[in-house]
Amino acid sequence: MPKDVAIIGVGQSPFYRGYKGSIRELAFEAFREAMQDAGISAADIGASIICSAPEYDSQRSPSGIIAEYLGLNPQPTFAIESVCSASTSGLRAGYAMVKSGLHDIVLVLGFQKMSEITSADSQERMGRGADIMWESPFGTMMPAYYAMHACAHFDKYGSTEKDLAMIRVKSAKYGVINEKAVYRKEVSLEEALAAPVVTSPLKRFDCCANADGASCVIIANKDRAKEICKKPVWFMGLGAATASMTLTGRESLYAISCARTAAQEAYAMAGVTPRDIDVAEVHDCFTIAELLAYEALGFAEPGKGVELIRDGQTYIGGKIPVNVDGGLLSKGHPIGATGGSQIRTIVLQLREEAGAMQVPGAEIGLVHNIGGVGVYGNVIILGR
Amino acid sequence: MPKDVAIIGVGQSPFYRGYKGSIRELAFEAFREAMQDAGISAADIGASIICSAPEYDSQRSPSGIIAEYLGLNPQPTFAIESVCSASTSGLRAGYAMVKSGLHDIVLVLGFQKMSEITSADSQERMGRGADIMWESPFGTMMPAYYAMHACAHFDKYGSTEKDLAMIRVKSAKYGVINEKAVYRKEVSLEEALAAPVVTSPLKRFDCCANADGASCVIIANKDRAKEICKKPVWFMGLGAATASMTLTGRESLYAISCARTAAQEAYAMAGVTPRDIDVAEVHDCFTIAELLAYEALGFAEPGKGVELIRDGQTYIGGKIPVNVDGGLLSKGHPIGATGGSQIRTIVLQLREEAGAMQVPGAEIGLVHNIGGVGVYGNVIILGR
Repeated sequence: MPKDVAIIGVGQSPFYRGYKGSIRELAFEAFREAMQDAGISAADIGASIICSAPEYDSQRSPSGIIAEYLGLNPQPTFAIESVCSASTSGLRAGYAMVKSGLHDIVLVLGFQKMSEITSADSQERMGRGADIMWESPFGTMMPAYYAMHACAHFDKYGSTEKDLAMIRVKSAKYGVINEKAVYRKEVSLEEALAAPVVTSPLKRFDCCANADGASCVIIANKDRAKEICKKPVWFMGLGAATASMTLTGRESLYAISCARTAAQEAYAMAGVTPRDIDVAEVHDCFTIAELLAYEALGFAEPGKGVELIRDGQTYIGGKIPVNVDGGLLSKGHPIGATGGSQIRTIVLQLREEAGAMQVPGAEIGLVHNIGGVGVYGNVIILGR
Repeated sequence: MPKDVAIIGVGQSPFYRGYKGSIRELAFEAFREAMQDAGISAADIGASIICSAPEYDSQRSPSGIIAEYLGLNPQPTFAIESVCSASTSGLRAGYAMVKSGLHDIVLVLGFQKMSEITSADSQERMGRGADIMWESPFGTMMPAYYAMHACAHFDKYGSTEKDLAMIRVKSAKYGVINEKAVYRKEVSLEEALAAPVVTSPLKRFDCCANADGASCVIIANKDRAKEICKKPVWFMGLGAATASMTLTGRESLYAISCARTAAQEAYAMAGVTPRDIDVAEVHDCFTIAELLAYEALGFAEPGKGVELIRDGQTYIGGKIPVNVDGGLLSKGHPIGATGGSQIRTIVLQLREEAGAMQVPGAEIGLVHNIGGVGVYGNVIILGR
């Protein structure tokens, strides 16, 4: 894979519970940091792509107002949505727009202010992310879906609640050192296991929390990247796939097929294997989701993902450090911003600027971002 | 501009008032026609892009359920939104995804079932397409915005209510022969001028109507297009631009600046001038919008657009036939589907398959699609 499209700047707002400003101000927090990181001005941006799940906003068509607020008129903009994977879908489109020659530099901004609507309403809206004809009328909610995945995995492979708790312990350990995370407190195995049940077998610490936040990623073609940037991070592989939205259409619940397909595609495009990945960010909206990701990404064979967490192999120093920024479980999950936040972490890792979270010498990193309950899967492989 | 990305299939549902089926069934109507037109099967589609304004749906993240219903799993999909220009924004991203080599064939499906919510709610939702901090709280609505544009144009250039009525007379004449249009009845100049006022100076026949509908456009790279398609229609130029969402941020109201910028970009990319365009589809959500389009696209100098309609030059046989499928005014305006419907009309024209609407010998066509009140402007030039 030729190095012809690069990431030249990344930014992220802190992730908040109950942000008091407007979405445009939230977006600006990530934008400012990314622009300072890239060292460019608004006039350098050829186009912007704004990523969010629009159900959470009062503002309709927020890309227009955000582009205006960021000083990005008259350059084109539009919005991309694939629920929780919106910003990596945006990155895929942004990559294509640069690679195709339509623009030299494209800015991909993801945001979500989930606190703009009330909590009860929020659960109902989330539920409508499942098939509204055949599933959501029965009261399905996100934790219930992932609880079904957990039960299926436990049943098929013998994984346990303790394995899931160990994933949260790791997440919490790294959340402590991530200044932008919502939750920055260690969680012991005992605490995780003793927490109140949300949807059996998932307990409170198995679930990530809604949050408000924004992320921003600036990408450029080869010439502009080399001109602007001392440490461009290159796109090596991009994979994307879907599975049926209705769960009854799935072959099984003990695996996330769209992630597996997307990963295979990304590895093939990059010309690398799972063993070549030095650091990964995976979509741990629930602890079980991280376990499923180990297997979908080929870090472990199907059913063997538990060995990685039991042996501490996904900590820094292990075979494949995963979510060493705390992941969604500690950072919080402002859904439209999440993919861009994962990308930012990997970019900092590959530039060796990740501070206390640094995986020494990381050269190739991977992002795994899932939308809906395994509906949309995006895998992006980046390299120095 | 090299001929390297083509449209190989187009489809459109009839546009309805009060469609009784679900959005997935509505999408299928356009999909089936486009797939039959292209003569390919679902497995040939590398990726789909689903375009709509999500405020009108009960289903959250409809791209997932639509891709599933159309048999497009496990290929990737995501949603694109730029209000009324969603499907041409989708086409721009689709073009980039094909041109970049990510996919050989991409399907762009636009839909809207505006009748899924009630009429009162609909106006409130539409209003939130303006800046919710500084404008929509004052009760702004679409007709009011375009009425301001009309007043500004009347004042600056001396255009009149009669000029606008003449645009509706043309629209209605062609709407009669478009089997997929909602309104298929001639309107006389007297009727148009005597119609009840909606927002002065705009009267009932100056305004398009909400509708339910879907459109589908299939695009392919050069090799696949030549292999599959007898009459590929090629992308020649793509332009896109924005203007501030807040009207107070605009330089003037007697022109739509984003359309002008997008047109200049599209002409430059295509290497053609306005005189080279044989047939055009412009975004006539209101009659004044068509008049503004004549000027933005360079079919007439600023202030001279009225001469085109007064002289009948935008009818078939005139200098530049515009909206000879009836436009939004006669077809109805199911916002996410509209751009794709415009593209379909131009593709049929360039393949000389437009029947009674055919502009003889049309070789180069243009689509002008606007989102919001002049916020997002997309111009696409197609050629045989």
